Amino acid sequence: MDSVPAAAASSAESVTVSADASAKVIDGKLVAKQVREEIAVEVSRMKDAIGIVPGLAVILVGSRKDSQTYVRNKKKACEAVGIKSYEVNLPEDSSEEEVIKHIASFNSDPSVHGILVQLPLPRHMNDENILNAVSIEKDVDGFHPLNIGRLAMQGRDPFFVPCTPKGCMELLHRYGVEIKGKRAVVIGRSNIVGMPAALLLQKANATVSIVHSQTKNPEEITRQADIVIAAVGVANLVRGNWIKSGAAIIDVGINPVDDPESPRGYRLVGDVCYEEASKVAGAITPVPGGVGPMTIAMLLSNTLESAKRIHKFK
Amino acid sequence: MDSVPAAAASSAESVTVSADASAKVIDGKLVAKQVREEIAVEVSRMKDAIGIVPGLAVILVGSRKDSQTYVRNKKKACEAVGIKSYEVNLPEDSSEEEVIKHIASFNSDPSVHGILVQLPLPRHMNDENILNAVSIEKDVDGFHPLNIGRLAMQGRDPFFVPCTPKGCMELLHRYGVEIKGKRAVVIGRSNIVGMPAALLLQKANATVSIVHSQTKNPEEITRQADIVIAAVGVANLVRGNWIKSGAAIIDVGINPVDDPESPRGYRLVGDVCYEEASKVAGAITPVPGGVGPMTIAMLLSNTLESAKRIHKFK
Repeated sequence: MDSVPAAAASSAESVTVSADASAKVIDGKLVAKQVREEIAVEVSRMKDAIGIVPGLAVILVGSRKDSQTYVRNKKKACEAVGIKSYEVNLPEDSSEEEVIKHIASFNSDPSVHGILVQLPLPRHMNDENILNAVSIEKDVDGFHPLNIGRLAMQGRDPFFVPCTPKGCMELLHRYGVEIKGKRAVVIGRSNIVGMPAALLLQKANATVSIVHSQTKNPEEITRQADIVIAAVGVANLVRGNWIKSGAAIIDVGINPVDDPESPRGYRLVGDVCYEEASKVAGAITPVPGGVGPMTIAMLLSNTLESAKRIHKFK
Repeated sequence: MDSVPAAAASSAESVTVSADASAKVIDGKLVAKQVREEIAVEVSRMKDAIGIVPGLAVILVGSRKDSQTYVRNKKKACEAVGIKSYEVNLPEDSSEEEVIKHIASFNSDPSVHGILVQLPLPRHMNDENILNAVSIEKDVDGFHPLNIGRLAMQGRDPFFVPCTPKGCMELLHRYGVEIKGKRAVVIGRSNIVGMPAALLLQKANATVSIVHSQTKNPEEITRQADIVIAAVGVANLVRGNWIKSGAAIIDVGINPVDDPESPRGYRLVGDVCYEEASKVAGAITPVPGGVGPMTIAMLLSNTLESAKRIHKFK
């Protein structure tokens, strides 16, 4: 596609989107559905062949409404593909020891292949102590430092790739975006998205730069990228003039912004200004409906992978 | 300093160096000496205060001449600062189990605070199995994936920073090179230098890009960098026109090139063409005498740090 001058793509207010937008929409909802269907086939094949059903255990501490919703969605997604789910709900004032006791019990339970501790944990708990208690073989979130180290190293493979960055890569692959030899910029360097996404792109032989809060000229660097993964949590940070013509844009941000016209009074937008970016980019994920649906699909994928590995099923 | 046009700095053959070279020379030999002196003071203070002497165990398998030299140099460096060194020499045809048995014995030996397995190991051995046997608390090389993971993660600290990248950072610090907010390019992505160096620069809030064999325009990206760490093992790869005026250049490469005028028939050069780069850069390490001497100094530093941590000595 032709290069769009920055000035022509600078109106964030424009809502006449689809008509002149030229970027291909990377449909995360559709890909996630495909992935879930593929997982359901594999789960069923495994059950028929060796009588084993993958199992995912979720530990929820406290009664945050959002966490309860996430856990419920994860359980539903498990059921839909035939993965067995186990749930433990502990009161807000539980001790670290109690949480760790439950983790230990799942660690040694052969019907559980993945263990997930829903974050955030109550303030009085040390995340690190609790997450480190999850057996590395069942750490389907992939947050254990040993796992991250293996992700960073050449010649080593992680036990699990963290779900959201894995979802980003899956979207790039399924839409045929070439990674090897390409310039990639990751905006944000969180332990759960930005940093592992950068390591994954690097492992796939992209030339990777990480842009963060201390970066002086983020737009200049981002404009060099053939692939952008934005995971910083700032609504509409990445404007049209940050983007190289034809680039592939993966937007991990899900930010509520006021919208009096919405029945809820707000709407969700990404870290990338979609209206502007979609006129410059070659392909872009929408928010919602982009990376969001991929995260749970990748959690199911990691749980299946774990069960296959533990039972040496190919 | 003024910008030097690329064309003016493109003659690799030019050997009229010092006269018009304007970069400050980063003297690794001098800094390493300072570091060793500081370590000697600390070792002595620790011995006087709690009667503990830091100990480093080195395991050498086989009889490679170069490895023997490295091990001998490490022992000498230990002695010079008062660190006790322990050495095990095993025959080339030892089994993995024998090596691991010795590692296990050092793991549980309270007088040993650091364990180093000299690489390369004989071909019939699996490096990963052997290196993973070293207790994470005594892995002064810092190569364990758990350690690398902690290096990559925000809010976590590694037990040990791998020696060569630590030496690069120390040189930047001691020469007052600001890192935060600066663009940094690491050329090469090895597990022992390039990748951890990139993680360290990132932890110090630089905006980091990693350039490697699949990068299409390495010179263009490198030219954007305020700080360059070259660790790729290709003689004179980085030319003068790759370098931004005033940049700080840390050259990790040590490559032999034919030199009929040298009594040995060869001389050592870095990954950076020093003659050209020193006319453009603001500061640069020579080869030899730059990063080289820092590696052993950092090994001593890690061993001291380990002894302090194990004995809770501040």
